[in-house]
Amino acid sequence: MLGQLVNGRAEAAVEAGDRGLAYGDGLFETLAVVGGQPRLWDYHMDRLLEGARRLGLPEPPLTTLREEARYLVQGADRAVLKIVLTRGAGEGRGYRPPARPLPTRLLSLHDAPLHPPEHWDGVDVRLCRTRLAAQPALAGMKHLNRLEQVLARGEWRDPAIAEGLMLDDNGLIIQGTATNAFAVQGRTLITPPLSLCGVAGVMRRYVLEQAEALGLGVEHRGLYPEELGGVAEMFLTNSVIGLWPVRAVANRPLAVGPVTRRLQEAVAGEALAPAGGRG
Amino acid sequence: MLGQLVNGRAEAAVEAGDRGLAYGDGLFETLAVVGGQPRLWDYHMDRLLEGARRLGLPEPPLTTLREEARYLVQGADRAVLKIVLTRGAGEGRGYRPPARPLPTRLLSLHDAPLHPPEHWDGVDVRLCRTRLAAQPALAGMKHLNRLEQVLARGEWRDPAIAEGLMLDDNGLIIQGTATNAFAVQGRTLITPPLSLCGVAGVMRRYVLEQAEALGLGVEHRGLYPEELGGVAEMFLTNSVIGLWPVRAVANRPLAVGPVTRRLQEAVAGEALAPAGGRG
Repeated sequence: MLGQLVNGRAEAAVEAGDRGLAYGDGLFETLAVVGGQPRLWDYHMDRLLEGARRLGLPEPPLTTLREEARYLVQGADRAVLKIVLTRGAGEGRGYRPPARPLPTRLLSLHDAPLHPPEHWDGVDVRLCRTRLAAQPALAGMKHLNRLEQVLARGEWRDPAIAEGLMLDDNGLIIQGTATNAFAVQGRTLITPPLSLCGVAGVMRRYVLEQAEALGLGVEHRGLYPEELGGVAEMFLTNSVIGLWPVRAVANRPLAVGPVTRRLQEAVAGEALAPAGGRG
Repeated sequence: MLGQLVNGRAEAAVEAGDRGLAYGDGLFETLAVVGGQPRLWDYHMDRLLEGARRLGLPEPPLTTLREEARYLVQGADRAVLKIVLTRGAGEGRGYRPPARPLPTRLLSLHDAPLHPPEHWDGVDVRLCRTRLAAQPALAGMKHLNRLEQVLARGEWRDPAIAEGLMLDDNGLIIQGTATNAFAVQGRTLITPPLSLCGVAGVMRRYVLEQAEALGLGVEHRGLYPEELGGVAEMFLTNSVIGLWPVRAVANRPLAVGPVTRRLQEAVAGEALAPAGGRG
């Protein structure tokens, strides 16, 4: 950890009674920092604002967050900035949200993760047993209730498997544990809808915009694992890695194709693609 | 707040990188303290052990927890003891559980809540819009992912409504936001199964044991709100309040009957029933 601010102060701790800890009552954002700049800042703030609105949190103080982020990331060439926003301490115990919450904001700067550079040439992924429950009141948000992802990511430790795909109650692929999933069929991207479960990734949004600019079509639907034999390409995205092509799902090989490569190139500058690499 | 121990030390803060805050990656228990004793201690520890097993946390240090609880509650006549157990700080960011986690334990003693004594004679409850998602991997556990309860409890502020009932995806009543629900039909208790959602309350278990001792039957099934017209009695339970009869659901009145009263009496000594009251 390279630096941290809790409500603007260089502290390393959060009040034990914070509702973020008690109930996961809050939101977070994880941003790539490249060349001293947090990337896709406005996209992350859009999602944070929308999440706060849906959870009934006070509007996030964007100017303060921007200043604190700038302070932390100065001089960081390649790093990860994490922002956590909680409903703060409560009026005593209990689920009831306080009428006038004093949110806690926590910014921390971390080393860039050490993913093998070859991940940007293609990763092997598995299918997780842990499913994503259907909860429209929370779907899409990057909130702090992430036990499903923790359990799913705990299913394997083999470093040869870069990510695991999570299915919904109906057995449809929705996303990876920490990534969004896309398939390519001809000139069309297929990506699962996130109205019932899953996280609406910032890089997912950015990829969809790039796809539109490239004249690609987009279909929003889940995919059964058995359908993957019929897709031309598949890839995973998040704000830190950018885009990883998928070269095998549960040992069934997939081709790394031109649409994936074109999109990877289009988003690489906004993420922590390997220096001088293909990302 | 009357006292607090974080990993055995009199601290008021938790490391900002704790996975309890980052992901809600942990468990909690809320115990009634009466006459200097935490009540139903073994039941709470049973649930904590089972939750830790299911989440893949190290076995909770029961002897240490007992000692720390004893230290905090000494001399407390009526109070609430909260125990939080998280997976601790991670190996850097990311959902993957550390191979050798160092859990964080947090014990805090709180004033007894100020519920109106007449709640033990019957409460008015509402039906919440926020539903409980079906997630068998987490159902029953008292884990730290509680946004559904927070959203549901945020639906009303009218103090005349003591609790809200939460339904599952199928529209069946599963529990209150912070209580378990029971209906009474003849000599049979009906209480929803908690294999897909909901929290398996310690007081629920205790009530079921008391019911067995009293020769009552038990049926495990959810109830549609429309069925409530046909039940004789209804009540809510948790470890702190013990048992509250329900006298109206969404303005439809219910009788407070003898089975409820008999069970309320049977469990009152293990909870914070009002001094000298009927609880």
